[in-house]
Amino acid sequence: MTEVIRDIPFLATDRVEALLDIERHLIAEQSTIERWFRGQWQRTPPPFYASVDLRNAGFKLAPVDTNLFSAGFNNLNPEFSALYVSAIQHYLNQYYPGLERVLLVPENHTRNLFYLESVARLRELLELAGLDVRVGSLIVEDRTVYDLPSGGQLLLEPLCRDGGRLSTTGFDAQVILLNNDLSGGVPEILVGLEQPILPPLAAGWRNRRKSQHFTHYRAVAQELAEVIGIDPWLIDPVFRRCQGIDFMRSEGRECLVANVDAVLEITRERYAHYGIHQRPFVIVKADAGTYGMGIMTAYSGDEFLDLNRKERTRMAKSKEGLPVSDVFIQEGVYTFEQTAQEAVAEPVVYMIGQQVLGGFYRVHTERGRDENLNAPGAHFEPMSFGQTCVLPCRKSPPDAPVNRYYAYGVIARLTLVAAAREMADWRRQGTPETGQ
Amino acid sequence: MTEVIRDIPFLATDRVEALLDIERHLIAEQSTIERWFRGQWQRTPPPFYASVDLRNAGFKLAPVDTNLFSAGFNNLNPEFSALYVSAIQHYLNQYYPGLERVLLVPENHTRNLFYLESVARLRELLELAGLDVRVGSLIVEDRTVYDLPSGGQLLLEPLCRDGGRLSTTGFDAQVILLNNDLSGGVPEILVGLEQPILPPLAAGWRNRRKSQHFTHYRAVAQELAEVIGIDPWLIDPVFRRCQGIDFMRSEGRECLVANVDAVLEITRERYAHYGIHQRPFVIVKADAGTYGMGIMTAYSGDEFLDLNRKERTRMAKSKEGLPVSDVFIQEGVYTFEQTAQEAVAEPVVYMIGQQVLGGFYRVHTERGRDENLNAPGAHFEPMSFGQTCVLPCRKSPPDAPVNRYYAYGVIARLTLVAAAREMADWRRQGTPETGQ
Repeated sequence: MTEVIRDIPFLATDRVEALLDIERHLIAEQSTIERWFRGQWQRTPPPFYASVDLRNAGFKLAPVDTNLFSAGFNNLNPEFSALYVSAIQHYLNQYYPGLERVLLVPENHTRNLFYLESVARLRELLELAGLDVRVGSLIVEDRTVYDLPSGGQLLLEPLCRDGGRLSTTGFDAQVILLNNDLSGGVPEILVGLEQPILPPLAAGWRNRRKSQHFTHYRAVAQELAEVIGIDPWLIDPVFRRCQGIDFMRSEGRECLVANVDAVLEITRERYAHYGIHQRPFVIVKADAGTYGMGIMTAYSGDEFLDLNRKERTRMAKSKEGLPVSDVFIQEGVYTFEQTAQEAVAEPVVYMIGQQVLGGFYRVHTERGRDENLNAPGAHFEPMSFGQTCVLPCRKSPPDAPVNRYYAYGVIARLTLVAAAREMADWRRQGTPETGQ
Repeated sequence: MTEVIRDIPFLATDRVEALLDIERHLIAEQSTIERWFRGQWQRTPPPFYASVDLRNAGFKLAPVDTNLFSAGFNNLNPEFSALYVSAIQHYLNQYYPGLERVLLVPENHTRNLFYLESVARLRELLELAGLDVRVGSLIVEDRTVYDLPSGGQLLLEPLCRDGGRLSTTGFDAQVILLNNDLSGGVPEILVGLEQPILPPLAAGWRNRRKSQHFTHYRAVAQELAEVIGIDPWLIDPVFRRCQGIDFMRSEGRECLVANVDAVLEITRERYAHYGIHQRPFVIVKADAGTYGMGIMTAYSGDEFLDLNRKERTRMAKSKEGLPVSDVFIQEGVYTFEQTAQEAVAEPVVYMIGQQVLGGFYRVHTERGRDENLNAPGAHFEPMSFGQTCVLPCRKSPPDAPVNRYYAYGVIARLTLVAAAREMADWRRQGTPETGQ
């Protein structure tokens, strides 16, 4: 059973005035915010699903990564299943009213039973919404049933390709739902399909760029900040990018040093403005890719002048061996949320269509406040939110759990607007070779 | 605080095979059912809100009244508020994306504080969904604040009419949300408005007919029964109507006697078919109107040959003195649900747009299983459902609370499809004099 967190992790910092101020603004302007989102979805439809990693520094609340192939559905609070299923139903009603048969294509790491739990849970939610669902794997060669830690089972079936149609034996899917981030590139079997693919192949990490997402996010955050009257920096991490980096050959170091220092300088200025005494830092990661590989915390551009061999190797490859050449340099946002046991926590918020579902805390007992926490392992522990992020409560203080969750839901949906704009870019550019 | 029922009332009958059979079918065919509903909403949009009174006889589960001006929102389980608010947001997204300002027009019984609690709760849910809401009363002459039993307050403002627009002082509403069933006819101030009215004025009880609703319901129930392979009688009460009845002058008695006997005869045949030993009965009520006034239980057509003066007077008038002339004769459905304290209970299910929200039990300690329970008073006691009616659970038995609630949600949504078709009739007929 998913563990549900009843007490929100506390903020281990006394610099919370700015955050309380954001939260107060979000609660006071809730009607305006909800209307603003409605206008956004009219212009740009949301992706089918997304999840976003947030960092809460007390003085700043910002997204650091937006995932368009969400896993971890098994970590959501099962109490709110009706909300999740109704979110799927509303999405179908609006965008795919006639849809009956969906083929879900998961990641290839079939040995990660926690990931398979997420696939099984997603499948269950889709079925509860009234869809026929099969799970078609890119790698299994025979129908294979996996026994899951929860006691459930998941059947993976081999994919078949017949002309322009992808299927599993005896199942003519109308839509392909991708839960595979295509870090290894787009497999031949998915290229040129007749069936729509959600999200589009262009969302895969061979094509998608964090810098493109956060360029949109910056614009979106500025638009909302203007509507509700806050400093957009409070919800938006500064970033730069460098192209053509080769860590092994130390090519492109000048760009890295200069841009790391540029991000630190802006951060330092804002910290001074708000009287924050923490040390500014940056997170350096692949502009494409995910999974906490090739991620580095730095406090100065100089650190990139003398990376040792181990550090260079670690940075040079990201998931599935995709070589890093474009690098994304993001203002580090401290996570000052910690559990009663003093473990560091960061919230992950889930959405289906335009609907925020809630989320969970990624709790890590062996990582610091300035480190990436998306590193599954023995010390990674998900704890479901006790509430849904849908509703604020004006009668409660701005930092009451219900209101903090609402704030998380607003920031998460800003990244969803950014993702919707990315998808609109891909549609405009057209990527016929990827079947879209 | 709303009392939440954790244990579903039990069925005080041993004739439950047929119901278990319906429930089993509904659970097994859930995907088909959800798709079928999606198809219905594509063809015919649902009303903004509705609530439906169901009766569960163990061998039969059927709606007996569908209300398009729902009250009792305060009786819904507050745990699921996120679902209610998201239902409003999805409705707005789909049908009124630009909507910001709503004027809610409630019933005139301002001395019923429980009704005002419902208005206050509805207003709160609309605001949480991101709307600006004012409550404009047809009868208050000055802005009046009502203190509610829950500790909250409700402000009623006088309505103003300026040309084709209805407003309250300083508030230019874009949409009028009616929570007044217009039993007394359509007030002048609502006639010929520029603003859309939800639901349309034609839904008021001067125009609406139960027989029209249940004619649509019969067709809808047959369609779904065919899709999932059940006898439609199990979910559909037989009915007849008589026009031009004058109880005081005893005009139209022959029609009443004949139709009461006709309904009883069909019921008797079905009871025999299913081996049910209960005594068939009918409910006779106004074809227009609501509120449990002018409602009579009968076991034979002969009962209408010699009504005494008191009975005739009671039947002759319904709410707000609307004289009964068209009479609706409906197969009585026993409610065999009773609480642990042996009080009779009937479920009331709520919907916003196409979304079922859950509901509550109307529990009555002084009424019988063959009587109408919609009679507010000392012995009327609402108990919120502990679950939402959205999700069945295949692993639980068909009569587990979660699955019984799902069955309620399906039957409730069938009445919603019927109401959607009624609204489509009104649009086709056009009722320009009522502003639609």
